[in-house]
Amino acid sequence: MIETDIELLKGIANQLRIHSITSTTAAGSGHPTSCCSAADLVAALFFSHMKYDAKNPHFYNNDRFILSKGHAAPLLYAAWAENGFVPVSELAKLRQFGNDLEGHPTPRLAFADVATGSLGQGLGVGVGMALAARQDKLDYNTYVLMGDGEIAEGAVWEAASLAGIYKLNNLIGIVDANRLGQSQATAFGHDIGVYAKRFEAFGWRVEVIDGHDIEEIIEVLNGVGLDDKPLVIIAKTYKGAGVSFLQDKDGWHGKPLNKEEAVRAIAELQPRAKSGIGAPISTPNILPAPNLAAPASFPAINYKLGDQFATRESYGTALVRIGETDQRVVAMDGDTKNSTYSDKFFKKFPARFTECFIAEQNLVAVAVGFGARGKVPFASTFACFFARAFDQIRVAGISMSNIKLVGSHVGVSIGEDGPSQMALEDIAMMRAVCGSTVLYPCDAVSTEKLVEQMALKKGICFLRTSRPKTPVIYGNDEQFPIGGAKIVRQSAGDKATVVAAGVTLHEAIKAADALKNEGVHITVIDAYSIKPLAKDVIKAAAQKTHNTVITVEDHYMEGGLGDAVAGELSVDGIKVHKLAVNSLPHSGKAEQLFAKYNIDAAGIVKKVKSLA
Amino acid sequence: MIETDIELLKGIANQLRIHSITSTTAAGSGHPTSCCSAADLVAALFFSHMKYDAKNPHFYNNDRFILSKGHAAPLLYAAWAENGFVPVSELAKLRQFGNDLEGHPTPRLAFADVATGSLGQGLGVGVGMALAARQDKLDYNTYVLMGDGEIAEGAVWEAASLAGIYKLNNLIGIVDANRLGQSQATAFGHDIGVYAKRFEAFGWRVEVIDGHDIEEIIEVLNGVGLDDKPLVIIAKTYKGAGVSFLQDKDGWHGKPLNKEEAVRAIAELQPRAKSGIGAPISTPNILPAPNLAAPASFPAINYKLGDQFATRESYGTALVRIGETDQRVVAMDGDTKNSTYSDKFFKKFPARFTECFIAEQNLVAVAVGFGARGKVPFASTFACFFARAFDQIRVAGISMSNIKLVGSHVGVSIGEDGPSQMALEDIAMMRAVCGSTVLYPCDAVSTEKLVEQMALKKGICFLRTSRPKTPVIYGNDEQFPIGGAKIVRQSAGDKATVVAAGVTLHEAIKAADALKNEGVHITVIDAYSIKPLAKDVIKAAAQKTHNTVITVEDHYMEGGLGDAVAGELSVDGIKVHKLAVNSLPHSGKAEQLFAKYNIDAAGIVKKVKSLA
Repeated sequence: MIETDIELLKGIANQLRIHSITSTTAAGSGHPTSCCSAADLVAALFFSHMKYDAKNPHFYNNDRFILSKGHAAPLLYAAWAENGFVPVSELAKLRQFGNDLEGHPTPRLAFADVATGSLGQGLGVGVGMALAARQDKLDYNTYVLMGDGEIAEGAVWEAASLAGIYKLNNLIGIVDANRLGQSQATAFGHDIGVYAKRFEAFGWRVEVIDGHDIEEIIEVLNGVGLDDKPLVIIAKTYKGAGVSFLQDKDGWHGKPLNKEEAVRAIAELQPRAKSGIGAPISTPNILPAPNLAAPASFPAINYKLGDQFATRESYGTALVRIGETDQRVVAMDGDTKNSTYSDKFFKKFPARFTECFIAEQNLVAVAVGFGARGKVPFASTFACFFARAFDQIRVAGISMSNIKLVGSHVGVSIGEDGPSQMALEDIAMMRAVCGSTVLYPCDAVSTEKLVEQMALKKGICFLRTSRPKTPVIYGNDEQFPIGGAKIVRQSAGDKATVVAAGVTLHEAIKAADALKNEGVHITVIDAYSIKPLAKDVIKAAAQKTHNTVITVEDHYMEGGLGDAVAGELSVDGIKVHKLAVNSLPHSGKAEQLFAKYNIDAAGIVKKVKSLA
Repeated sequence: MIETDIELLKGIANQLRIHSITSTTAAGSGHPTSCCSAADLVAALFFSHMKYDAKNPHFYNNDRFILSKGHAAPLLYAAWAENGFVPVSELAKLRQFGNDLEGHPTPRLAFADVATGSLGQGLGVGVGMALAARQDKLDYNTYVLMGDGEIAEGAVWEAASLAGIYKLNNLIGIVDANRLGQSQATAFGHDIGVYAKRFEAFGWRVEVIDGHDIEEIIEVLNGVGLDDKPLVIIAKTYKGAGVSFLQDKDGWHGKPLNKEEAVRAIAELQPRAKSGIGAPISTPNILPAPNLAAPASFPAINYKLGDQFATRESYGTALVRIGETDQRVVAMDGDTKNSTYSDKFFKKFPARFTECFIAEQNLVAVAVGFGARGKVPFASTFACFFARAFDQIRVAGISMSNIKLVGSHVGVSIGEDGPSQMALEDIAMMRAVCGSTVLYPCDAVSTEKLVEQMALKKGICFLRTSRPKTPVIYGNDEQFPIGGAKIVRQSAGDKATVVAAGVTLHEAIKAADALKNEGVHITVIDAYSIKPLAKDVIKAAAQKTHNTVITVEDHYMEGGLGDAVAGELSVDGIKVHKLAVNSLPHSGKAEQLFAKYNIDAAGIVKKVKSLA
């Protein structure tokens, strides 16, 4: 690299600083000093090192850049303004209502693959992208810019460990070690050897540099991909770098400059700034594009009524079946694949499966990364352990990610392992995710059909699978559209409408049969789609049963099926009686636990009879 | 240590193996091989090294033992049987319904301080306990037994980092590196130098040993506390150790032996086993007991109606006030203390505050650890980031922990920072936790009073605080019992009952005033206690307003205040119209976002008018 280029990059870096200061001052909020520390790194990446088409941020072989320290969003926006993608005039609209240049990046912007802003999530997403590049035989690299404060997050070390295990030398972490956190200095300040030791111990090649020395930055970036390990660049930087009264000073986190301060800062930066640079110097290689087409159809299924399968097992069977025709489908698990039955897919398509070990935050982050590369990732573990990744799932909602989460071993029906292994709050959690779909099948056929739907529907879909075997109750041609429900029992004069799903649907059927023998009739609805809920189906049925609904679920009282039905239908005068788990369960046999919580057939019968 | 003692300990270890096998075979499920690998470690800890009163597991200066690999529960139960606390005959009732010897340990057992079974959580709890010991000037140590598989969890590294930072030499981690996970070998197998390097890099003293060599185990345990770092013992072990057909064999995870296999295994172990050992050899020192008494009352508050405070700020004020009289109160934060206002407590009582840096799983785990030692820990961060710790909170529910979580910056009312920083699913999450209390104050007075209540109520309490300032609307003598609600506006002929909380309560009041000018009257209820909900108060009010309720909340539609009210009251024929955030928000001004989602006064007015 010739000297003038270095000078040019220094000028760009200062221009990025100016944009960051100007836009946050205009907005009246934001994090200009967190932008300034990383400006040289970003200038080198975007205007010298990275290969990408600035006119087409989604191009499949562009290098990827994840701003894990999402609060430095104005810096990212500035880079995409200087490379010509975002009009510079737009930067002044930062954080304004309706503008996509938000406080933290989201994929409403073409150049943000994922939302960031909840710290420590970017590296795991990068792992997923780097793995996707390998599977697709593409040579793009994935760059993840992190703050030093955020690498206290355990999620970073889950990702670091997996990247080391899989020797992802197409993944580059960059730590902007600016020493200052939000409320005080980081634990290690500028003792950045600590970070170096940690990444080394996690299997990474480490370069420690002065993060404001463009030559040094370029030099280490030239070493990307030269060995078989992921590379992390620990860059010693100063918060507010480049502006005398900001640099390395306490009290400037998340604080815009007032207009007078901005004028002073820009007066310092302007003489050393260069604007209007245009495109990056390197463009991506043209390699064969991955096949990301959705299939027109899936192979048929062939089940026999009454045969017994656990829905978790049917999930594994379904995944293999759809994976045959849908090349987008990939899978990952957290060392539970022999319990979730994702091992069926692993055995059939080992190259499309990622073992993530016992690290559920990273399991979800990896899925998000694959999803951002056009794959349809199915991530599975015990449903209760997705709670470990709730923040990743929440942010995936903001990313409008295309991920499929499959949680097995739900509810007290798992029995003896006890409450730590029972998902009893997963429906509440997954319903609350923006844009999510929540599915809960009761037999093999509905599981198979819902897995198909999940693959075809863009967005976050959660499938709740069960440990016990249940009989096939649906014919092979039955359809299970998302947002639908099945009326399983109904007759004139029904006393109540019982809404159930999963294991409790079978209890409701048993209850209906038992009541029938006593001359009492009930409607039974399989609410396999909990979100969106088939409220019109349930409402119509309920109105035929004196507006009386009984919900039955293997989940806590709060936020599950009962609240979903009541929340949708109380407005129509529907009365919802909830049967659910209402205290901390013990270990025990599933039948004993079902009986204790009145979510078995006997409990349903008793509830029906108790109604006036 | 003389040779016969070593032989005795070996014998005890084999007896623990026998108990583990016998009890899991009787139960028909469980993890005997995961017990066998750690049997020598547990024998050395419980019958030679640890100082504790086996008759009084809760004694305040007992060494603490956390079985982070909770699936080895039968081994723990065996140790407490061999030390005389649990009748040996009870072991045969493992996993039976109603028995407290469950599949994974819970604090229903006096010797389990916390529930374990969701892997990777024990070390963080241990950090909290070790910090509590220091604060209380007690000399007990905290021992945390982990599996090798579980240290892939990021939570372990959050805890390891903080233990290193605070040089907790009263904390001892033990890694039972038995090489085999659930579905396959761990990533590093018996290459245990990897673990050694990692813990070293995180500031620990590391000892690598043969985990089946009692002499070596005792020798390294003799080094506990000898320097200023936490100590981790990486023990190379074999899953199923001691039984020829189990040891180091694939396919034996989570699988009990059948009766014939158990007989064969015991035949191998019995000649080398010693039973009926009785108490541990060391007893704890008698030091002054910590003051863990709840205060009779708190200092009074003195606010003026109409003065403006953010509830997050009032939280900080309240915490200092109650901290003056309640010595049990401690606080911790995740580098947001200048935003959550926990820094007020930090400045007043620095020795009772723990900065946990940006690592929310560990923030909650540390609180759980303090709570288990009789403290009343208040942990604060942005409410959305508690999603990061949902699994820890879920398990704290199983632990029946006494922790107080305070989440600030909720909802779209934070404005420009955008959706990644907005808690919009936290009520759903916290309601779903077993035994939780969910509180959402709207002004300074109610915040102050609710913080008092939280300190006095045992259990998991969540306080939802807001970023914007709101006026004081309650007098200083007003009471806010948990489970209550305040009727803020009510008159004969009210058209509807509006139920709100936090920032929306003020919008509801404005709406009531605006409607009044048009001759329309509404009831307004402040549902400051979302769980438990004051359902009788709301029901009685609703019945006076044609059974019509409008809920208004700065939260997503699912699982929040609206679902809580509908879920409780639809059964009484109450019709609940929900106003809530129903799509992914943008950055923007709070007023703009409130208007978009119709959760401002204008939206409420419009909704009231739309009702027949």
